[in-house]
Amino acid sequence: MAVRRVRFEEAGCPVSRSVDAVGDWWSLLIVRDAFDGLRRLSDFQRSLGVAKNMLSARLRELVAHGVLMSVPSPDGGFQREYVLTAKGRDLFPVIVALRQWGERHCFVPGEPHTTLVDRVTGRPVAMLEVRAESGAVLGPDDTVVTGVS
Amino acid sequence: MAVRRVRFEEAGCPVSRSVDAVGDWWSLLIVRDAFDGLRRLSDFQRSLGVAKNMLSARLRELVAHGVLMSVPSPDGGFQREYVLTAKGRDLFPVIVALRQWGERHCFVPGEPHTTLVDRVTGRPVAMLEVRAESGAVLGPDDTVVTGVS
Repeated sequence: MAVRRVRFEEAGCPVSRSVDAVGDWWSLLIVRDAFDGLRRLSDFQRSLGVAKNMLSARLRELVAHGVLMSVPSPDGGFQREYVLTAKGRDLFPVIVALRQWGERHCFVPGEPHTTLVDRVTGRPVAMLEVRAESGAVLGPDDTVVTGVS
Repeated sequence: MAVRRVRFEEAGCPVSRSVDAVGDWWSLLIVRDAFDGLRRLSDFQRSLGVAKNMLSARLRELVAHGVLMSVPSPDGGFQREYVLTAKGRDLFPVIVALRQWGERHCFVPGEPHTTLVDRVTGRPVAMLEVRAESGAVLGPDDTVVTGVS
């Protein structure tokens, strides 16, 4: 995709804003784990192997950005739980896109990896495709980024 | 998507591998700019406003990961240029997914932003959708992550 260069483009670029909002890769792995049903700080810590204070900071940021919400523990314990908001759940295609790229390019043939499957059929989900309104598949060269408007 | 927890899951998780490979958000913005036709370190620097040494390090990492390749300048100048490999071009859905999420959630209504359009029709590309093999649209709750295999 070529671009018509404009001033202040960065401020008007949705990719850049998303990157600001999700913050860093740890945040994205937290979102992945939240999709996988993890809710407690201790669960995220076990999954990610990251220091508790760093994890707490990331969770707070994701709450501040409206990606996660902090809810009381259903068992009445003092530990809060973190669940995806509607905004957070809309990151599903981002996580799937990263997963599919990783499957294709970050494993040697035959190397084991997890797979995202249709819960009903057990079959892998289809590859994400960028499409025109008409349904035609578009590659990078078929698209262009407009100026800010 | 719920997950059947397995040991060493992280090593087998394609999302995690992708995150390792693309490295950090600067790298992803470099990839975005490369899709937009930028090729020279000085162009990336102007677009991203990042220190030259930090940018050079990111470009080297992206080359090492096979996302970009370094090619001689076509005008014979001494400055190398950076272009996406096939692996790098396959990040197109990742960039589009981040863009569409940003458009939806990171701008107030009416706030100007850039738009990715079909080069032929000038119309915005369709929203990415996660689909089953059958073509049915799948949400997070319709999918499950399998163990490593």
